Amino acid sequence: MWQVIRMIRTLTALALLLPTPAFAQASAAIASGKVAPSALSPGEIVAAAPKAEWVAIAPSDLLVMDLAPDAKARPRRVVIQLMPPPFSQGWIGNIRKLAAARWWDGLSVNRVQDNYVAQWGDADGEDKAKARALPRGLTVVPESEYTHFSGSTAAMQDPCRPRGLSPRELCDSYAPLAAFRQGWPLAIDGASVWPVHCYGMVGVGRDLSPNTGSGAELYTVIGHAPRHLDRNIALVGRVIEGIEHLSSLPRGTGALGFYETPEERTPIVSIRLGNEVAGLPVYEYLSTESATFARYADARANRRDPFFIKPAGGADICNIPVPVRRAK
Amino acid sequence: MWQVIRMIRTLTALALLLPTPAFAQASAAIASGKVAPSALSPGEIVAAAPKAEWVAIAPSDLLVMDLAPDAKARPRRVVIQLMPPPFSQGWIGNIRKLAAARWWDGLSVNRVQDNYVAQWGDADGEDKAKARALPRGLTVVPESEYTHFSGSTAAMQDPCRPRGLSPRELCDSYAPLAAFRQGWPLAIDGASVWPVHCYGMVGVGRDLSPNTGSGAELYTVIGHAPRHLDRNIALVGRVIEGIEHLSSLPRGTGALGFYETPEERTPIVSIRLGNEVAGLPVYEYLSTESATFARYADARANRRDPFFIKPAGGADICNIPVPVRRAK
Repeated sequence: MWQVIRMIRTLTALALLLPTPAFAQASAAIASGKVAPSALSPGEIVAAAPKAEWVAIAPSDLLVMDLAPDAKARPRRVVIQLMPPPFSQGWIGNIRKLAAARWWDGLSVNRVQDNYVAQWGDADGEDKAKARALPRGLTVVPESEYTHFSGSTAAMQDPCRPRGLSPRELCDSYAPLAAFRQGWPLAIDGASVWPVHCYGMVGVGRDLSPNTGSGAELYTVIGHAPRHLDRNIALVGRVIEGIEHLSSLPRGTGALGFYETPEERTPIVSIRLGNEVAGLPVYEYLSTESATFARYADARANRRDPFFIKPAGGADICNIPVPVRRAK
Repeated sequence: MWQVIRMIRTLTALALLLPTPAFAQASAAIASGKVAPSALSPGEIVAAAPKAEWVAIAPSDLLVMDLAPDAKARPRRVVIQLMPPPFSQGWIGNIRKLAAARWWDGLSVNRVQDNYVAQWGDADGEDKAKARALPRGLTVVPESEYTHFSGSTAAMQDPCRPRGLSPRELCDSYAPLAAFRQGWPLAIDGASVWPVHCYGMVGVGRDLSPNTGSGAELYTVIGHAPRHLDRNIALVGRVIEGIEHLSSLPRGTGALGFYETPEERTPIVSIRLGNEVAGLPVYEYLSTESATFARYADARANRRDPFFIKPAGGADICNIPVPVRRAK
């Protein structure tokens, strides 16, 4: 049983680094002039995607955080998609155990730093006398897991010069290459591949090195992509619905945006894996290997819809959010 | 008199494109190993800057927006620094007239779209019967003013390959080059120079082209840099204090994040130029031509303070915010 799971994970891990022919073909077709560039907006392009290009997310790969209702008694639910192998699986295994143990229930959002992160977990975690005990069996993950080594380096054209019409491989300020694989934004340097800190990505708080964090303390990006955190902290997923319940919280006035009084914290009612939540919608993402995603990414980099007069000619990977929706 | 002003503006415009020797020297010294790279954090580097490296901002170049107090009766002030010549001066002239006419007083923040913008102005602006009349004498600015033509193209090394230790000229996903000049983040393509949509930058809402907006409808960026707007909309300044009063507002649930009911809008008490506001602190920014700024930018691209284990080796221009503070 475990061997089969391991084999599936290995295959998935390999698939993550394979070329993505549909995207490449669509990009080439647009670049060569065989396909007219679209005057549709990115949203219109995505809305026209055939059903087959959407990939359903397994409920067991969702983490559902219910915050206490807001001042007007409206519910506040944040839905997070966990990353697939080969990334961060040690921490994600811990997160599954923490959710199963109801470990976060009754804890809170303790830090909201403007243009940076919102962070939740145990506000007393630093105080050994008061800290909530972690469940047994959590893994201590080594720092080497911040980056995945694919074992193969594909020969790549320089994505910065010239910038293509269609960003199959993106010019990046932090790595030789940025690219999408199986729904996720990644940076690539030779055989090294790592997920990147875009808006809404969820990461694992930690103490000073060599501590790598357990997964009990989590944050999400609520500002400009803090890419300097890449390869320094584990990324475990992204918020796919409800990020406004975190990004619009009052900013903390203490150091690093921590709240100075307990009253300012937002209580967490519960955090559960999606397969434990009754009535959860099915969520799906647009395959980043699809022809529609290629057209969408091209349109994000070269807006030709009526408002725009000057297509940019390129795009930062974090300015091409992967479309996610509730399945119809 | 006008000739003198014009000459000063022309000199300023030229200075904006000159090399910045202090920065270049500091970068070269670090890159060559003559100066030890700092293990200080970017904040610690900035805190140690000598007073002479800080540039005071004239109160007449500030725009002060007082929103209605929040639910706990706390004041909400947003301070904006207007851009210097040669950028966007037509719109900025209009903004000065609108502030002098008290045009915004009693209007509101009408749109807050997550990971995008917060926008303020006349909620009834689209309705001719209800719209507040604009003051006379506003300039209609042509689209050509979105970009400044410097008339000179300096030969540049490719900033993407290899990435230097010190980002004097930054690799950029949207232009051949990104760089700081006189306190502002700019993109450069040959003789064309334009300001860029980083977090906190303030722009001018407009209708479809050829409309370029008057400056009456303004927005600020509250998410990942929407650089596709560069050269498509005028940028006129940046929020230097109080952006949390905009970025933490509830998101609008209508199309594009507009509020659906008047009650959701945040009222604007007043918008004034800084020289009209009694008791305003003096604000100053760290000269982007200073040695400290070079060290700061290097540290943003290569974090060596204790938390970090892997310096990024590069940085996006919008991840190097120009330090601004109240003068001591």
